[in-house]
Amino acid sequence: MHPKTGGDAANRDNPDSAKGRRGFLKEGAALVTGAASAGLAQRANAQGLAGQPWERVYGGGFTGYGQPSRFEQPVMRYLGKPYGDLAPGSGSALAPIESLEGIITPSGLHNNRSHSGTPDIDPKQHQLLLHGLVARPLVFSMEALWRYPMTTRIHFVECSGNSSRALAPQPAQVPAGAMHGNIACSEWTGVPLRVMLGEAGLSPQAKWLLAEGADSAHMSRSIPIEKALDDALVALYQNGERLRPEQGYPVRLLLPGWEGNMSVKWLRRIKATEEPTHTKDETSKYTDLLPDGRALQFTFEMGVKSVITKPSSTMKLARTGFYEISGIAWSGAGRIRRVEVSADGGATWAEAALTGEERPKALVRFRLPWEWTGREAVLQSRATDEKGQVQPARKAWLAQYSVNPYHNNSIVSWSVGADGSVKNVYV
Amino acid sequence: MHPKTGGDAANRDNPDSAKGRRGFLKEGAALVTGAASAGLAQRANAQGLAGQPWERVYGGGFTGYGQPSRFEQPVMRYLGKPYGDLAPGSGSALAPIESLEGIITPSGLHNNRSHSGTPDIDPKQHQLLLHGLVARPLVFSMEALWRYPMTTRIHFVECSGNSSRALAPQPAQVPAGAMHGNIACSEWTGVPLRVMLGEAGLSPQAKWLLAEGADSAHMSRSIPIEKALDDALVALYQNGERLRPEQGYPVRLLLPGWEGNMSVKWLRRIKATEEPTHTKDETSKYTDLLPDGRALQFTFEMGVKSVITKPSSTMKLARTGFYEISGIAWSGAGRIRRVEVSADGGATWAEAALTGEERPKALVRFRLPWEWTGREAVLQSRATDEKGQVQPARKAWLAQYSVNPYHNNSIVSWSVGADGSVKNVYV
Repeated sequence: MHPKTGGDAANRDNPDSAKGRRGFLKEGAALVTGAASAGLAQRANAQGLAGQPWERVYGGGFTGYGQPSRFEQPVMRYLGKPYGDLAPGSGSALAPIESLEGIITPSGLHNNRSHSGTPDIDPKQHQLLLHGLVARPLVFSMEALWRYPMTTRIHFVECSGNSSRALAPQPAQVPAGAMHGNIACSEWTGVPLRVMLGEAGLSPQAKWLLAEGADSAHMSRSIPIEKALDDALVALYQNGERLRPEQGYPVRLLLPGWEGNMSVKWLRRIKATEEPTHTKDETSKYTDLLPDGRALQFTFEMGVKSVITKPSSTMKLARTGFYEISGIAWSGAGRIRRVEVSADGGATWAEAALTGEERPKALVRFRLPWEWTGREAVLQSRATDEKGQVQPARKAWLAQYSVNPYHNNSIVSWSVGADGSVKNVYV
Repeated sequence: MHPKTGGDAANRDNPDSAKGRRGFLKEGAALVTGAASAGLAQRANAQGLAGQPWERVYGGGFTGYGQPSRFEQPVMRYLGKPYGDLAPGSGSALAPIESLEGIITPSGLHNNRSHSGTPDIDPKQHQLLLHGLVARPLVFSMEALWRYPMTTRIHFVECSGNSSRALAPQPAQVPAGAMHGNIACSEWTGVPLRVMLGEAGLSPQAKWLLAEGADSAHMSRSIPIEKALDDALVALYQNGERLRPEQGYPVRLLLPGWEGNMSVKWLRRIKATEEPTHTKDETSKYTDLLPDGRALQFTFEMGVKSVITKPSSTMKLARTGFYEISGIAWSGAGRIRRVEVSADGGATWAEAALTGEERPKALVRFRLPWEWTGREAVLQSRATDEKGQVQPARKAWLAQYSVNPYHNNSIVSWSVGADGSVKNVYV
């Protein structure tokens, strides 16, 4: 479980780069000899530790449902409300990825893209209708659904528009989460959609599904039947407990690796159809305009992507020395094979250690020990997935479209100034 | 990711048992033909779904930190306060495992065993002292620790006294969590303890560590150095965010697979020693009395164990037909190899499908489709770990001790009455 550096990969480019000017450190240097970590801790004095106030008073009582420490209250989602308080639940709430670690996103900080706020659904009243091109139209109460056979998997959910802010002409100086935090990863438990379709008796003519939410916008998307019969879940639990209201309580669709808004929340209806329904949510929105003027509709699968969360935009490195570069990577196509990190704006790369790379369509945590010498640096990460797809450079990504596309999985660059300040830059 | 039945295992005992009187169902029967699931859903009528009130009003606005639905408020931890309101944070808070799914325990429902309540620790003031038989005694501020190289792993934490209530002379009729819920499983991120010991320069004479908490009880345990150098973590994050106060904010020890209270919360001090310290928390407590009158001290590793959470004690089966038997299994020795389920009090067994069995010292979810015919049944689960250790029967477990032991990993039995009521029984 040790972090490891990608010495081999780095050495292919540059024999002396692994401990060279880029400052990536070998495991031994970082973890054991103290070359890196020494100096972070202080030498203890003879008195040891002073007794703190909380060691002298009886602590707080038990609670039925726990909450974060009051000292962590600044760790909140970033709220984007384009219509302000006229529509306080329309827009998005982004996860503060720069404050998080590991792979699981705490449910309270899960990203949330909603069109007409969060409905307050009574699970005793809510029902799910399955109809259209099926032999037996069915209505599922929540009591019934909770008795179906379930499956548990860890998957990310990313809004299709995540990181579109990083396509603006000037780089915004905001925290990583405010730009790239429309992503989260949870353990989901639910009923495989194919089980329910099997029970209803799907007609051979059925090539698409319409999925519709019970929010007042009735958010609706068309889904190819192949995906529905592959790994689609009708999700009822998130990180062990029932779904949070903002993630679709009491039931949502989950289409692993695909545009987040296709994983319709507050699911009320699935209709089997011959053609896509072309709903209001599939017209000008969620499409990417090509240079020849045509719109690329139905960009379902989210691209291979990564972002360094520590250090990242608006942080400040207080001193030179050891830092662990840490971040998240993911791909809608399956597993992450590799994440490379550069500290010189892409001139040379070293391979990071991965955690969670055995899971398809889930976040992966990457880490690489780095020594900041006090010189200017540009930090980048570049993910490759098991299909061999490589995260593109920002310029190459933009060149494919005539206007800024809705999707953006291009490489993110953070500059570190001589004063330690970390900034969002385009390189 | 389909559930599968252990047809092979069952058939070894009884050729017709897989669909016979025990009622376990083959995958096909359970998932596709509708023999099992048909009838849970209702046939839709011509009108489809009625519009619900929440579909006609604009929903709730975004929140910085989300919470569960108000309809889930009954899902709370079970509080055990032996000293009542005189010491409202002394005792334990147990996870409602019968309401949970998957493997991850939501942080708000994580089990909590505390001796003097939850201290309200300011991370800017808290420090961790590492001293004793080391070349360089060190003091770690939280700012410093947050910069160390980290690792992420999913592990359970079980209180050593979990399920001791199931050793009482009469079986308590309480929910599964109130008896067996002093267990939880989280994704933990932190610094490998061996990195910090390496930096301090551990002396060859050091064979034990003393770990001490910053609660007002200064909870303290002795830890063999081999465990500290193996997989011990100094944990800073739980399920993606910083530790919850009830789980040791801002820093705790994590000794995967070992007695929960050795994973000292609110960690303030680690001292390297030649011998165990025999602290106040290691005297009469946390030992098991043997028939010859000697006390078994230092029972570190938690035994191989499982419990069926659905259906379980105090639930009621409303109708005959399909049920998915679902539960959790774990072992302090490593991975779970197998979970078998019986519906006839242990006469015959079928092998359950597992999720998460690739992870050592983590919860595993097991599932098996079952058809309840309306007759009386006794449900049991029996886990086997990768070391070949098998969860013992209750009687065999008790026979090893002269008085009830503190530990209990024996098989749990739930009876299903002809009226569908599920009860805790000893068989």
